[in-house]
Amino acid sequence: MHITILLYDNMTALDAIGPYEVLAHVPGYEVAFVAKQAGRITVDTGLPLLAAQKAISEVERTDVLVIPGGPGSHALMEDGEVLAWIRRLHEGTRLTTSVCTGSLILAAAGVLEGLEATSHWTQRHRLADYGATPSDARVVRQGKVVTAAGVSAGLDMALAVLAQLADDKTAQCVQLALEYDPEPPFDAGSPEKAGEALANLVVKLQS
Amino acid sequence: MHITILLYDNMTALDAIGPYEVLAHVPGYEVAFVAKQAGRITVDTGLPLLAAQKAISEVERTDVLVIPGGPGSHALMEDGEVLAWIRRLHEGTRLTTSVCTGSLILAAAGVLEGLEATSHWTQRHRLADYGATPSDARVVRQGKVVTAAGVSAGLDMALAVLAQLADDKTAQCVQLALEYDPEPPFDAGSPEKAGEALANLVVKLQS
Repeated sequence: MHITILLYDNMTALDAIGPYEVLAHVPGYEVAFVAKQAGRITVDTGLPLLAAQKAISEVERTDVLVIPGGPGSHALMEDGEVLAWIRRLHEGTRLTTSVCTGSLILAAAGVLEGLEATSHWTQRHRLADYGATPSDARVVRQGKVVTAAGVSAGLDMALAVLAQLADDKTAQCVQLALEYDPEPPFDAGSPEKAGEALANLVVKLQS
Repeated sequence: MHITILLYDNMTALDAIGPYEVLAHVPGYEVAFVAKQAGRITVDTGLPLLAAQKAISEVERTDVLVIPGGPGSHALMEDGEVLAWIRRLHEGTRLTTSVCTGSLILAAAGVLEGLEATSHWTQRHRLADYGATPSDARVVRQGKVVTAAGVSAGLDMALAVLAQLADDKTAQCVQLALEYDPEPPFDAGSPEKAGEALANLVVKLQS
């Protein structure tokens, strides 16, 4: 099973590393990190933290495509070369997936037209501009397209994807290996749970 | 606030990226990734995925120290240079923290003697070899030392740490920004929940 994760400057690291950690340790699964050019990626905190092993021009097909999100997604939505590459790979994938505003990149590539999809809660309304129907579900599957909500939702998405690609037992093994038994100290992970004041603050900080 | 996250070959990427993502976007907080030598880090899947911006020799003090885990922790537990650096930094930290088997590195450095601590569920019994009392809690705080359970527990630990360093509202803001409203498709994140058969399988796969 070939998993291809797109990296790009100004992306959010956890969007990529969550799904990677779920999928990369499965025997027989091979993960490749790719970018427009191979090499160092500067993430959205300004740190040159990640590295792509291959250029997108070297990857012509994959079983699973993962498009992470982050502030840099805006630039990618207007990058014809990347969008054409996504469209080309999507034709041959078993699953095309996104985390956070990665779904806006899929949308700009035309992949989400007519489909329900999700994204980061501050951005998901923008999916409608591309013919998709925004959903507030954490993980949305439509045929072979699977979109996840913001940042940390990539973990839940990847476990669901793994159950589909392999079986429930394999996904449960990985969940146990990652000790993914979440216990956040607060219950503020969605705008509904956090309340309007906190939601407004996050929107303000992110704009 | 200076946060220092140790990177090393054969580590588990999510152990570091989870806490990083929680702490790095807080205004005024500065995260540095350090390793024995600055440069590319090959993680436990064999991919040269991460990069350290500084060598440990360049870092003499930090407010928060984060030691991630992974198979490479075994080698670090016998690395006198790294252990001495941890002991030196620990003297001046506000909080010394670990994720997964990062606690075994702290233990080998002598930081956990006489304290309760946690680690990945397959490894936490080994803490007793270093004078610590193993706990099955997801996050254990003892004075200024905070240890987290396996891999994904770093997210929960970092939110708790952030609430302590700043306040509850700041931690809730970050939780909402990361849309950390976990919804794993299975309830198999601890050996008790996953059951003995699955737990035995994970132990076998990891040995």
